[in-house]
Parts: sequence; structure tokens; C-alpha cells
Amino acid sequence: MDRVLAVDLGGTKIYSALVGRSGEIICENKCLTRPEDGVDAVIDRIANSLKCVCSACERPLGIGVAVPAYIDSEKGVILFAPNLKWRDVDLKRALEEAFNLPVWMDNDANLAALGEHRYGAGRGYRDLVYITVSTGVGGGLILNDQLYRGAFGGAGEFGHMIVDAHGPICSCGNEGCLEGLASGCAIMRDARDLVRSGRGKGILAATEGIEGVDACAVGKAALEGDPEAKEILIAAGRHLGRAIASVANLLNPELFIIGGGVACGVGELLLEPAYDEAYRRTYPPYREQLKIIPAALKGRSGLLGAAAYAWDQLQQEIDR
Amino acid sequence: MDRVLAVDLGGTKIYSALVGRSGEIICENKCLTRPEDGVDAVIDRIANSLKCVCSACERPLGIGVAVPAYIDSEKGVILFAPNLKWRDVDLKRALEEAFNLPVWMDNDANLAALGEHRYGAGRGYRDLVYITVSTGVGGGLILNDQLYRGAFGGAGEFGHMIVDAHGPICSCGNEGCLEGLASGCAIMRDARDLVRSGRGKGILAATEGIEGVDACAVGKAALEGDPEAKEILIAAGRHLGRAIASVANLLNPELFIIGGGVACGVGELLLEPAYDEAYRRTYPPYREQLKIIPAALKGRSGLLGAAAYAWDQLQQEIDR
Repeated sequence: MDRVLAVDLGGTKIYSALVGRSGEIICENKCLTRPEDGVDAVIDRIANSLKCVCSACERPLGIGVAVPAYIDSEKGVILFAPNLKWRDVDLKRALEEAFNLPVWMDNDANLAALGEHRYGAGRGYRDLVYITVSTGVGGGLILNDQLYRGAFGGAGEFGHMIVDAHGPICSCGNEGCLEGLASGCAIMRDARDLVRSGRGKGILAATEGIEGVDACAVGKAALEGDPEAKEILIAAGRHLGRAIASVANLLNPELFIIGGGVACGVGELLLEPAYDEAYRRTYPPYREQLKIIPAALKGRSGLLGAAAYAWDQLQQEIDR
Repeated sequence: MDRVLAVDLGGTKIYSALVGRSGEIICENKCLTRPEDGVDAVIDRIANSLKCVCSACERPLGIGVAVPAYIDSEKGVILFAPNLKWRDVDLKRALEEAFNLPVWMDNDANLAALGEHRYGAGRGYRDLVYITVSTGVGGGLILNDQLYRGAFGGAGEFGHMIVDAHGPICSCGNEGCLEGLASGCAIMRDARDLVRSGRGKGILAATEGIEGVDACAVGKAALEGDPEAKEILIAAGRHLGRAIASVANLLNPELFIIGGGVACGVGELLLEPAYDEAYRRTYPPYREQLKIIPAALKGRSGLLGAAAYAWDQLQQEIDR
């Protein structure tokens, strides 16, 4: 049987799998990334993880790689990966040499969009916007059934859409980006501010001390019904909804898919206020077309997107 | 020689032309729309205007029509044209019957984007965003060298991107849309507010009484150096720049083209603050890619876009 290797390289873990043409995972492996050990150590871990999943199998046809980075997609060089603190790393060549297989690489949010489109919540849709809400906020665009990368490969930076001209400073240095208002980091910041002000008892009860207060603790408290935790998620959801409305008006897509650790963890607590705000803010003739659903592949959107990308590239080579 | 007919139907005037394959205008005609006379009268005027431009020439191959409307592009029916106060008008069929020629119709901002891409400031670019700043704010997207209409035909509503969560109420009913902050109407509102507050002498001097205060008067005063008029345009330009930054981050295009009556009238007075704000707000790795230029076809972007659209459709029929 034909198989490809896929790897989703994250700041905390490396997730590898051997994947069939329908997106079925034959064998998978997860290990810690530990970027503090340096580039070479991480590349060795990726290679070992991939060897581990294909050891029992026939020879795979190629390798798809999802990276949390801004990359030169033609050369396959990682220009900048903030979570890994990598700059100018030629991961593609390193893996090609290690496996003697073709390697295709793209940004993880782009590939998560592709994964959901091919195997997940976006199957059968031609135009969709995938949004990931985790530590940061990212996204990917499927337009006319194709991953849209923009002119320079950087399309989909949904987290840096401006939703409040006077909002807080974002990690990118600008004010009012969605990422500074609705990411896991923003939720953590708001929850810690609340705790520091002497409130947020329910959130504090969901974890150990203020250092443990993060988006996960907020989600836990909110799921248990804590009103302050819910209020933080509602505020984040509304900011998300405002950005969705802007994109609905600009791109008029069929579907928005919301994935990422934070969104998957809290589900409707974030999606409901996001939908309500987006509906209210969408240009009236487009409102009834608005559709926002959770990702279906959860933690596997990027991994299966990397596999889909490898399959697509193999198909293109056959077509040539 | 092969020719097509093109018409740009506006709320105030009908602009028709006989156009060659390279976008050259052989003969043109302008007349008032006067929508208050009713749908049939306006359709008669369009037909007469078109007959006027092709009377001396060989038989054209088809008709491209740009309409200020939300349309069903498959059926070619105008669903809603606010400036004309039209609903469910089958202009395509009326013109097909009048001329016995194929008729192709699209939204004017979409076709202006196509016009600039084919014959204007966007020649040679693959991915661009066209923005029109006139009475309202609209736009059109060229992605991968194609007009991108979204899933339901409504892509490009740039004016309804939210740039200030707490901004003024827009004509669409939402708060903080770009159209409510940077359109001709918004500039007029801000200028009149200023005059009513006892200031804005320079703007008032550029026209006759507060009823004459509009974006044109503001532009005139600003071009003469009036600081209050300039300040209004700077504020509008900054809002525009904020929306451009969001789109630069989302779509990562090669180029933004700014057209429309207000933008063409005041030029750099609007574009400079827009560029400065967009540059400052764009995701840092994308800043040096930011390019914002004025439309090259000025009042003819929509008309020549309608012609380009007709040429494209004719070519598609040949290819079939």
C-alpha cells in the first residue's frame, strides 16, 4: 500500500505518523521537542520519530512537514520559527538527506486548513477560512479548493487582523491585533490581571497559584460554571467574532472552522459568543450565509494537512 | 476589428464605451442616470447610450456591464442596488433582448479591480486588492490572476471591515466599519460636525454654506492647505490604513490599489496617512512588501473592467 510520512513540528512536541491516502493513520509517534537542546538535536528527534513510525512498514513515498514558522516555501527553508527560536534552518534538506525521500514543508496553520479541508470539517467546501486559537492565533485560507498563500507565502495571519484600534499591544508590536485579545496568552493575561485584582477565585481554584493561571485553568473554571472565567472567554469570543465578521465581508467564504488547543478545549464557551458577535457584525446580506464550526480533526489538523500536502505533491508529479 | 461594448452604471451617471481588445476606447458616452424616473427609464437610457457609442462602428461581440449592486452573478440578476433603489432587476435579459448580444454583468468594484489589473496600475501583478473610496468604500480582489468572488459572489466588501470596535454606526447598521470612518459620507459628516461646532472656516470657504460641505469641499480646502481639512483626511486615511494592514496580514498580496472619486480627488492627502498607518500596523515580517498605489484608470476602472470581463467571457467561449 502507498503511504506518506507526516510530521507536525510544534514548540513543545513532535507528532509524526505514517498516513494512507484517505488520511488514515497507520502508526503514530509523539515526543517532546525540547528546542532548548538546539537545532541539530531537534532535527535528530524528528528523524527518529519518523523512523519509528515507518520501521514496521513498506517504504513511504515522501514526507510532509508542518512547521510553526514563516518559511520560504519554494526553497523549503524555515526563515523564522519564534516558538523554536530558529532562523534560517534548512529542515527540508536535512530530512531529504536522512531519508532519501522528497520532503514538502509548509506553515502549520496553512496545513491545518488543508487537513480540515481534505479530511475534516471542511470536506466538500470550496472556500473556507481555518482559524486556530491556541497560545497564539493563526489561520489558513482555502480558496477555490486550493490553499491560498498570498503573493509572498504569508497569507492567513488571522491573528494580526486589527479588531480594536485602541486595544492592547500584541507580541508583534502593534495595538489591537486579535492575537492580543483572544489568544491563549491574552486569556491568561486577563485571568492573571483578575486574580491580581483580588477576584477570580473560581479560576484560582482550578489550578495552583497565580503561576498556574492560564487559558486551560480559565477553561476548566468556565466549564465548571465560574462566571468570571466565562466572562473572560465571552470577551475573547467576541473579539474573535469581530475578526470573523471582517473576513466574512472581505472574502464571503462558505465556512469558518475554529481549531487550536484553546478553542478545542473550551468549545462552545468561545464559539457561541464568537458566532453571536460575528452574526451581528456581518454585512446584513451575508448574515444567513455565516457558518462557524469547530475543527473535526482536533490535534491532528496539522499532521493530516502535512500528509494531504505530500499526497498532493506526489499527485502533481504523476500528472507532470 | 473586434470590439465590445462596456457600460459602468452609476447612481448619478451612465458611462458607456466601445472598447478594443487592448482596452482602447473607440467611442464613449456619458449621460445622467436619474434613477428617480424608474427602472424602465434607466434601462432605456443605458440602451440609448450603448447604441450611441456603437452606431458608427461594426457590430460588437458582446456587452460587459458594471453595476453598483449585489448581484446573482450566475443569473445576472441585480438583487439589490442601494444607490439606484433597485431590487430584483433583470438588466442582463433586458440588454440581451435590446441588442441581441451576450451580456455579462458584475459588481462595479469587482470590475474596477479587474480593469486596473488588466489595463491599469495592477498590470503584471498576480495578487492585488483594489479599494474604492468614494461615497462609500468598496473593493475587489484579484487572487492568482483571477477575480475572486467568494463562495456566494460577495467578496470584496472592504468597506464593512471593522476597524474600530467602538466606532460610529455605519449605513449597514454595524459599528466601526471602515465605510463609516473613511468614506466620502464619513468625511462629509466629520466636516459638517466641525462646521456646526463653529470651526472649519477654511472648509466652509471652499463651498457655499453647510449644505455644500462634502468630501469634495474638504479635499479642495485641504489641497489649499487648510489644516482642519487636512486633519479630517488624515484621520480617514489612518482608518483606511488600519483596514489595509489587516488585509495585508490576512492575504499577503503584492499590491493595494486605491481608486474611487474621493481618493482620486485628494490623492496623497489620503494615501500618505493610509500608507504610514498601514506600514506601522502591518505584521513586521510583511512590512517591506507593503505597496499602496493610486488607481491608474481613474474614472474608467469600472468601465474598462466591464470591457475586460466581456473579453474574458468571449475568450472562454472560444476555448470551449
